[in-house]
Amino acid sequence: MDSTKTLATFAVETPINRIPGWTLHEAKRCFINYLAVSLYATFSTPSNILAEWLQEEGGTPQATVIGRGLRTNLRNTSLLNGYLAHLEDYDDTHFPTVIHPSAVVWPAVFAIAESRKLSGSDALVAFVLGVEACCRVSLSVHPWHYDQGWHITSTAGVFGSVVGAGRLLGLSVPQMTHALGIAGTQALGLRESFGTMAKALHPGKAASAGLESAVLAGKGFTGAETILEGRRGFWEVMSSAGHDESAISDALGERWELKNNGLKPYSCGVVSHPLQDAVISLRNTHNIQPGQVQAIHARTHPLVLELINRPEAKTGLEGKFSFQHSVAAALVDGAGYPSQYTDERVADPTIVGVRSKVTATSDTSLGEDETYLTITLTDGRTLEQHVAHATGSPGNPMTDEALETKFRTLAAAVLPKDQAERLLQAAWAMDTAPNLDELAKLTISPQAK
Amino acid sequence: MDSTKTLATFAVETPINRIPGWTLHEAKRCFINYLAVSLYATFSTPSNILAEWLQEEGGTPQATVIGRGLRTNLRNTSLLNGYLAHLEDYDDTHFPTVIHPSAVVWPAVFAIAESRKLSGSDALVAFVLGVEACCRVSLSVHPWHYDQGWHITSTAGVFGSVVGAGRLLGLSVPQMTHALGIAGTQALGLRESFGTMAKALHPGKAASAGLESAVLAGKGFTGAETILEGRRGFWEVMSSAGHDESAISDALGERWELKNNGLKPYSCGVVSHPLQDAVISLRNTHNIQPGQVQAIHARTHPLVLELINRPEAKTGLEGKFSFQHSVAAALVDGAGYPSQYTDERVADPTIVGVRSKVTATSDTSLGEDETYLTITLTDGRTLEQHVAHATGSPGNPMTDEALETKFRTLAAAVLPKDQAERLLQAAWAMDTAPNLDELAKLTISPQAK
Repeated sequence: MDSTKTLATFAVETPINRIPGWTLHEAKRCFINYLAVSLYATFSTPSNILAEWLQEEGGTPQATVIGRGLRTNLRNTSLLNGYLAHLEDYDDTHFPTVIHPSAVVWPAVFAIAESRKLSGSDALVAFVLGVEACCRVSLSVHPWHYDQGWHITSTAGVFGSVVGAGRLLGLSVPQMTHALGIAGTQALGLRESFGTMAKALHPGKAASAGLESAVLAGKGFTGAETILEGRRGFWEVMSSAGHDESAISDALGERWELKNNGLKPYSCGVVSHPLQDAVISLRNTHNIQPGQVQAIHARTHPLVLELINRPEAKTGLEGKFSFQHSVAAALVDGAGYPSQYTDERVADPTIVGVRSKVTATSDTSLGEDETYLTITLTDGRTLEQHVAHATGSPGNPMTDEALETKFRTLAAAVLPKDQAERLLQAAWAMDTAPNLDELAKLTISPQAK
Repeated sequence: MDSTKTLATFAVETPINRIPGWTLHEAKRCFINYLAVSLYATFSTPSNILAEWLQEEGGTPQATVIGRGLRTNLRNTSLLNGYLAHLEDYDDTHFPTVIHPSAVVWPAVFAIAESRKLSGSDALVAFVLGVEACCRVSLSVHPWHYDQGWHITSTAGVFGSVVGAGRLLGLSVPQMTHALGIAGTQALGLRESFGTMAKALHPGKAASAGLESAVLAGKGFTGAETILEGRRGFWEVMSSAGHDESAISDALGERWELKNNGLKPYSCGVVSHPLQDAVISLRNTHNIQPGQVQAIHARTHPLVLELINRPEAKTGLEGKFSFQHSVAAALVDGAGYPSQYTDERVADPTIVGVRSKVTATSDTSLGEDETYLTITLTDGRTLEQHVAHATGSPGNPMTDEALETKFRTLAAAVLPKDQAERLLQAAWAMDTAPNLDELAKLTISPQAK
């Protein structure tokens, strides 16, 4: 099977009217989430380093870096926006494969669309197709590829950014096939980088490499036309333990992977999310105060104790890998935003007090996004909550309202309230925007130099 | 063993007086060869596409693209120069591993040195260390990594460009360790791209990624400090069939891999080189004319018949994979430059006439760089030549004079004779140059717009 050509044909020839309306709404939700997490990351230390470097490098002002308002060339803009989108580990997640598609696809699509004065509707369509491409490449190599040590968000992601960018550039099927080849041979990102500033560089590079490949193919540059299926291609070389080529073509254009892409409610790994859902639900229903808590116990999927059992977390980063902290912060603050994962908050006496009362046991009959959680109060009452599917999982998508709250909370780090509100409304109205100039401008923080 | 840190320490702490003088001379020879092949590739179709794209992207003029004279930022310059260096498949080769080190290391080193007004001597030292780093990484994964389908020139090469650039930037050992991590996680390049314009993009990207990683580490950016040896690092993920960590540390600082790096005399795969050597030697000694040839027969290593047995080559590219054409062109033209591999030359009646008289038989007792070749003349004479080690192999390095001839021949494509001569002399005098401004200017073709 010519899988590469199949993907190229789908990317080029799928008519707009075959793309379901719900996917375009989901694309807007992904965009709002993307803006939120990128704005929050704007003035972080590693972002500042990258911005300083890219300002030294310079470039034709063609597109806008979120938050910072730096206008630079397409390579730099897509790289830095891809970095911002992934830095907080708070971006969307394609549940079947753990790829984070927006961090790679949106930066490429938005940069091309903004620079070429294309419409919001064009951008949304390109995003949907790009996500479909990279999620299907992910499905074709999961779990072998990730288990081998590859950061699938960037390695498979580059197939999404090139499709999104190439669609906007109007590539022909042969050009798109070459573009996939140019992009696929640039797949990179080792999981060894997890825990370092270089991790988020992976989607940054995947966003820019995909964009560049589409531009080059449009000018006649060639790449391998069999980059997926060839003897020395992506599958054989980067997923030697196995691959499934049917994942590319199976119901292509009928089934859409955005359905399986969830928005994260909490700024930590997904395994603690059902516990946080349960605690916040009980807390809000019963108006529980920290001093009332006698004990909190959760029955969970075994991964909780395997991956995030850290009763004595000391730093914000450790807090993200501590179900005890996540549960305690959920009870005290009613949330799991980045502000619940600062060094200060992890050391807060009230949270630490609750944390010491949090325990869990494994139950292999439960799903990864499921829990039975019990809070015992000092007055002897016992409150129970079953979460069948955590918020943000395919079985229980985050509501638009919850997404708006997440956006407002994160955007507040760098945008005044009224500007954040206007940006949010502009994002919801993206499908009617003749171009993306206003949207891009609204992302710029007044704190930007 | 902390292989990544071992390499970083070597790159940072090796004093200049521990670097043998012969390696610095070899570095100059690599530079002259690098200039020659890059100048020849300057105005090729794919180079023109890349240059057009990078001009659109723009960038602070910090360094010079060879030949074209485009002055742009460090990212763009190192990318395009890396591309030019490898496009003709005529760059240097580290024989034990088939990595082509100059195409990745020189673009990064030269761009940093030019932009920071560093001396030619600084650049040569940085190049020697960069080559050592990437050749040792190559040795640590060869042959498993290449056999898996990776283009070792870029995947291992990025460890060379980052070391060369990082040395010039004066990184500390911790910074260099992080720089290796940032660079190593960007290793890329699938052999599926061979035969397409994207192949030479691999060293281009490796040159720029290494340079960028060194710059970022100097600003405090972090990467995996165990990028080679870590559980999800380069060795486990990208060479799962095997690796040899002792290749990093074995006699490090005592044995220098530039000794095993050869300059190619002929613009085709190395397996035909001993045959071309033999033919040119006999031709020149006996003043053989094409009409005098009755038969040419070579006893060769079996790879000749396996890889380049193509008696009816039609195009220039096919000619590169035809020992019959290479031998015939060597007899008629006395050379194997790119001009012997044009479509026209491959179809030339005189060359085709000789070609039909060329045969070979395999002899497993011979080395890959060895042949016994016999020319039978129409007057009945039989001339024999044994080549024990082909020109450009470690056992028989190309002479400085032959390198100068190669340089003059290739540079003539874009530089006037007197300018080429001045550039050649400036390159030989590189170790006394206070900065690289003049050298960079001399590479600019008058044909550049």
